[in-house]
Amino acid sequence: MHHDFFNIISREEFESLLLSFAPTGIEKSSIADAYGLVLGEDILSPEDLPPANRSCMDGYAVNARNAFGATEGNPAYLECCAELRVDEAPDFTLKPGDCAAIPTGGTLPDGADAVVMVEHTHELGSGTIEIRKSSAPGENIMLKGEDTAKGENIYEAGHTVRFQDVGLLAALGIGNVSVHKKPRIGIISTGDELVEIESPSRAGSIRDVNSHTLRCLVSKAGGIPVNYGIVRDEIEKLEATLAKAIAENDIVLLSGGSSVGMRDLTVRAIESMPESKILAHGVAISPGKPTILGKVGSKPVLGLPGQVTSVQVVMLSIVMPFIRHIMGQKDAFACLDRPIRLAELGRNTPSKQGREDYVRVSLKHREGKLPIAHPVYGKSGLLKTLIKADGLMIIPADTEGLYAGDQIQVWLI
Amino acid sequence: MHHDFFNIISREEFESLLLSFAPTGIEKSSIADAYGLVLGEDILSPEDLPPANRSCMDGYAVNARNAFGATEGNPAYLECCAELRVDEAPDFTLKPGDCAAIPTGGTLPDGADAVVMVEHTHELGSGTIEIRKSSAPGENIMLKGEDTAKGENIYEAGHTVRFQDVGLLAALGIGNVSVHKKPRIGIISTGDELVEIESPSRAGSIRDVNSHTLRCLVSKAGGIPVNYGIVRDEIEKLEATLAKAIAENDIVLLSGGSSVGMRDLTVRAIESMPESKILAHGVAISPGKPTILGKVGSKPVLGLPGQVTSVQVVMLSIVMPFIRHIMGQKDAFACLDRPIRLAELGRNTPSKQGREDYVRVSLKHREGKLPIAHPVYGKSGLLKTLIKADGLMIIPADTEGLYAGDQIQVWLI
Repeated sequence: MHHDFFNIISREEFESLLLSFAPTGIEKSSIADAYGLVLGEDILSPEDLPPANRSCMDGYAVNARNAFGATEGNPAYLECCAELRVDEAPDFTLKPGDCAAIPTGGTLPDGADAVVMVEHTHELGSGTIEIRKSSAPGENIMLKGEDTAKGENIYEAGHTVRFQDVGLLAALGIGNVSVHKKPRIGIISTGDELVEIESPSRAGSIRDVNSHTLRCLVSKAGGIPVNYGIVRDEIEKLEATLAKAIAENDIVLLSGGSSVGMRDLTVRAIESMPESKILAHGVAISPGKPTILGKVGSKPVLGLPGQVTSVQVVMLSIVMPFIRHIMGQKDAFACLDRPIRLAELGRNTPSKQGREDYVRVSLKHREGKLPIAHPVYGKSGLLKTLIKADGLMIIPADTEGLYAGDQIQVWLI
Repeated sequence: MHHDFFNIISREEFESLLLSFAPTGIEKSSIADAYGLVLGEDILSPEDLPPANRSCMDGYAVNARNAFGATEGNPAYLECCAELRVDEAPDFTLKPGDCAAIPTGGTLPDGADAVVMVEHTHELGSGTIEIRKSSAPGENIMLKGEDTAKGENIYEAGHTVRFQDVGLLAALGIGNVSVHKKPRIGIISTGDELVEIESPSRAGSIRDVNSHTLRCLVSKAGGIPVNYGIVRDEIEKLEATLAKAIAENDIVLLSGGSSVGMRDLTVRAIESMPESKILAHGVAISPGKPTILGKVGSKPVLGLPGQVTSVQVVMLSIVMPFIRHIMGQKDAFACLDRPIRLAELGRNTPSKQGREDYVRVSLKHREGKLPIAHPVYGKSGLLKTLIKADGLMIIPADTEGLYAGDQIQVWLI
């Protein structure tokens, strides 16, 4: 069987294929557990928030008309009819000429439409309060429904739950929400040379790095990593492990297979599954070209490059956004949440047109200037290039390279 | 007892006080669990990595001298003496005029110092290989010790374990490392108006938002949140809960206390503990000024502002970096890992000199241009300002504001 090594597609085409896979199903989750997950349905505000007009300040609740034009030199005088507690729902209506002492967060009585800060008042004794500042209706208060109005569509399905959203949901008394299930990601390492990390160092054996880095990156993206250990280069064993991993997970990642033989074995194993299809034999990115995308039934199987550094770059650039997509996130490949630093490129960096280059760079910080980014070169079998890198610089496929002095965006990793 | 409301210090001074607290103790952790934690000791490489010279390519291991000057038109001819397997440690020495077939990752035999890629060779049959390209010593091989040399100091204490570090540690056979313990962060909400989120909506009650957002942000920073629920505004109850939280945690966060009464109560509760001291009554940031820092024995207690939005900004700007410091991270307040986006400010934004402003902004993306950042204004008791914000723009204390059209850095939240 021959698989064309050069039948590779652009990153955009590869992403379109990935986007054809459906997100995970929906389940109820407490808002605490929903943090970082993606909403599976729209959420409407069940009530007005705040439920009544509240004070933003310690001061006096007034009807603004009664303190109209008040100044230091020409104060207004109001009678304090009540000392409201913060947890009190006042059951009276403020009479003309009256005011009520109110703490921050306190509920305004009917008839009051503003709060005068305590700093702008003076207590004259026997209940009379001198008001030294005019206030406009609505001043220093949060209006009923100002945060959210009852029935308002506050979130759309596909929205990732942030800490501030957990706060708003708590404020609305919403303790549980529908979210996409955390996807399970099966991880299989392949290669006759691979040994567990407990094994002693020996020429001819390589400790299994990919299982460990993939586990970290899957967790970071929000998935649940499920390790299937090391599988030797035997088609029967690989098929059996792959079948089990496909049955038990939402996505399966195979790593290893930089050699021609291993790549062919990966492709053969995927093709041996029922209802399987190889969708892509490679993607025009560097490092990461020999990335295979297959489909078994409705599930995606990715054959990642074997080189330790290549597999990490493919995880960051393609697989982690894909996991977010499978978690239900809209526009997951836009990667709007990537941490970016501006930097000045330290040397000319050529790039082959037609492929997107992920150049590892280290950053040297400078006082009062952009940091300098230096490309970190080295063979992709070496771990140290990513160890020394602070981030990645992406050179687009339509560019022949970047120049020393160019202002670049460095994606921190 | 009177506490000066205006006895506030700069953010830099506040940070210096926070830096005086010692990090958590050290414990052994598996490398998987160490991901995101901070190393408690230096790590030396226990061996050479790789342990022997390895091939980066599928091809033929050669002695470069034997293929010197080889080209398409003037190839060299070598005898293939072995077909090496990837998991083989060759026990022979390559003889002059010989080569050995080698897969990616395979170990080179003695006497070989380069690999010619299979694409630049041709098998002539009966063991003779035509070499069509000259190669330099070291070409297409990873040298013994090229990643790390035995005894090399590969990590210093204070380094945060990244995914790529987990990979290098796995490659070196290091399954466990010493890390700073995850700090436990006690969270106490105070206020007579606070009710649990299950409670029905009612004027005069406010559901407890801060416990939920603090839990998320503590986890995000890497700490273990420990909730102590809602404490009413009674000094005895607050003292009892605070004493318990201090005993059980590395840091205690109190939230609530925007009103003068609540602030005084927080200060009194801290001061009532044995060996206690109030280190700061406020910090010159906005929002977040009424942030109290206390010390009980050796442990920090932070009295956060009560306003829901203020407390979230103080968490992001001060408390989360502080948690990283307590986790052992060097230069935690440099916040070098914050996700930043460049943007163009959409309108003039004044700021009071002498305080650092954290202005919430929303980003509007534009094709081929920097996004436009619009300040999101609103009372700090409202949740929606942070809900609508994509990030924060920091206006330094020595600045009177920024102008529409200014290029700004937006810290994504």
